[in-house]
Amino acid sequence: MSDVITLAHGSGGRKTSELIANMFKKNLGNEFFTADDAAVMPRPEGKIAMSTDGFIVSPWEFPGGNIGKLSVCGTVNDLACMGAKPLYLTCSYVIEEGFPIEDLEKIAEAMGETARKAGVRIVAGDTKVAGKGQVDKVFITTAGVGVIEEGVNLSGANAKPGDKIIVTGDVGRHGTCILLARDEYGIEADVKSDCAPLWDAVAAVLEACPEMHVIRDATRGGVGTVLYEICDQSDVGIKVDSEAVPVADEVRGVTGMLGLEPLYLACEGTMVMMCPAEYADKVVEALRKTEHAKGAKIIGEVTSDNKGRVVMTTGIGGMTYLPQPGNELLPRIC
Amino acid sequence: MSDVITLAHGSGGRKTSELIANMFKKNLGNEFFTADDAAVMPRPEGKIAMSTDGFIVSPWEFPGGNIGKLSVCGTVNDLACMGAKPLYLTCSYVIEEGFPIEDLEKIAEAMGETARKAGVRIVAGDTKVAGKGQVDKVFITTAGVGVIEEGVNLSGANAKPGDKIIVTGDVGRHGTCILLARDEYGIEADVKSDCAPLWDAVAAVLEACPEMHVIRDATRGGVGTVLYEICDQSDVGIKVDSEAVPVADEVRGVTGMLGLEPLYLACEGTMVMMCPAEYADKVVEALRKTEHAKGAKIIGEVTSDNKGRVVMTTGIGGMTYLPQPGNELLPRIC
Repeated sequence: MSDVITLAHGSGGRKTSELIANMFKKNLGNEFFTADDAAVMPRPEGKIAMSTDGFIVSPWEFPGGNIGKLSVCGTVNDLACMGAKPLYLTCSYVIEEGFPIEDLEKIAEAMGETARKAGVRIVAGDTKVAGKGQVDKVFITTAGVGVIEEGVNLSGANAKPGDKIIVTGDVGRHGTCILLARDEYGIEADVKSDCAPLWDAVAAVLEACPEMHVIRDATRGGVGTVLYEICDQSDVGIKVDSEAVPVADEVRGVTGMLGLEPLYLACEGTMVMMCPAEYADKVVEALRKTEHAKGAKIIGEVTSDNKGRVVMTTGIGGMTYLPQPGNELLPRIC
Repeated sequence: MSDVITLAHGSGGRKTSELIANMFKKNLGNEFFTADDAAVMPRPEGKIAMSTDGFIVSPWEFPGGNIGKLSVCGTVNDLACMGAKPLYLTCSYVIEEGFPIEDLEKIAEAMGETARKAGVRIVAGDTKVAGKGQVDKVFITTAGVGVIEEGVNLSGANAKPGDKIIVTGDVGRHGTCILLARDEYGIEADVKSDCAPLWDAVAAVLEACPEMHVIRDATRGGVGTVLYEICDQSDVGIKVDSEAVPVADEVRGVTGMLGLEPLYLACEGTMVMMCPAEYADKVVEALRKTEHAKGAKIIGEVTSDNKGRVVMTTGIGGMTYLPQPGNELLPRIC
């Protein structure tokens, strides 16, 4: 193979076949991976869930992961949020002409490794090469199918007053990490993305609590945007204990300097969950036993007053509204 | 709404919600379309097929369609090639900042209309906005799930010597259309893309012939590339009667001037099919009754000699090899 991606790699001809065989099949292959137009799998034993996510993160590589890992986690976690065990993924690459093959290999490797960890199979893909300048290095879109077990019914519209609100870990890590990786602010800090596949955490929670109401991942827009969306969808208010919100010291340092609210910075391996109060401790305990949710914590509760608003309380009895999610959120991180 | 796409439309905040409600839900909505992280559907009654395709066609609008229509047809047809009735699609947009809302509406409209015609539901989507210059106008990736009925077993590896080769219509139309739409050659000709969803044609064929061996759509790389791929996958040779290959006069005119082989130009609504000789006439007859395959024709047969090669025969007894698919195929059309 040549060292960089050429238009021929996306032409659908021999070079494309070589790239699929030497790069994608090697890293992503499994019993369903196909050279035909579509992959064929046994029918799932339950309702199915489907989701898709496009990734245009810049830079494509960052502390804690790269766009390949991110693109698997994103769709796996979206499925998990509906209580769906992720089964199959498709991936579609748009690569800029001239992109180094070596870097593409890193991406495909991370994708394969993350898929194996998440227990999901990448069954079909597509590769397009765009001319120099037509695309910024590499964009990846994944789509996934998962299966939902009997009795699971999660939705942003299911929050009930009295529900406890849990985050599965500290917030704002991915957004801060990408912001630093762009190197536009001249700040040096050691912030690693939280990017991780969370199906095992969700499975543990569904086991611990037969009445989970809401599970959402806090990607673009962060935890703050998700909370406001749930207020709207469920017609409730939300009260968050601002001192309970876990924020890593290094994240707090950076966001403090830049005047950013960690609740509005993206997470890629942290979810927001809501369940009846009586199950909350059990859910936290179950989460803390899983690999990526050791920092799970109750941060607040759903209320019947202050409908449509997120109220932040402080230890000394203060109370403020979390500002409504604004327009352009910086940085764009997925 | 503003007149053009801004970064805020892709931020995951309020503007994104507005775009989804006012543009995508309106055009693409159905009973499964969701505001949650993943759409939930009843389980399919059979094996499932999955496929994905990314579309970066330039220009995004062309005679006979636009990137929205194309992105539905591409995945619907990939599923159909496996004998899978398309059920659900996801779509992921990457839009350049500044792209006119009016144009996005045309794309979403075409997408919705084509999905309805194809009998497929768009159940989930994603919208990212890339900064000016980070992407060329708009890229769309679709992924789809279909269901395969008992007994259907199609694959590029199933061609058998003696099989007849059928094309569902005239070849090279989409590639020629895009080439002209780019306006780089100063040629004026009235060539309309063949872009169309073909599940109804495939369903008719599966009804007419219980022993279909191969169905492939001839997109990137055209019919020629597909034939060479099947030679490889099935370890057979292929003989094509060059005078039987249907090529529209206007396509022949343009490709003649530019020295291009129509068999290597993309189709987006034309398939290659292979079946036992005794069923071939029935298959052609069934195809001709469907909306987009009125020009179906037998163009050749599968042979046990000349393995791995596509031989073109001429009326006066001549015989040449169709050149192997090359490297970069012009123009990039999907």
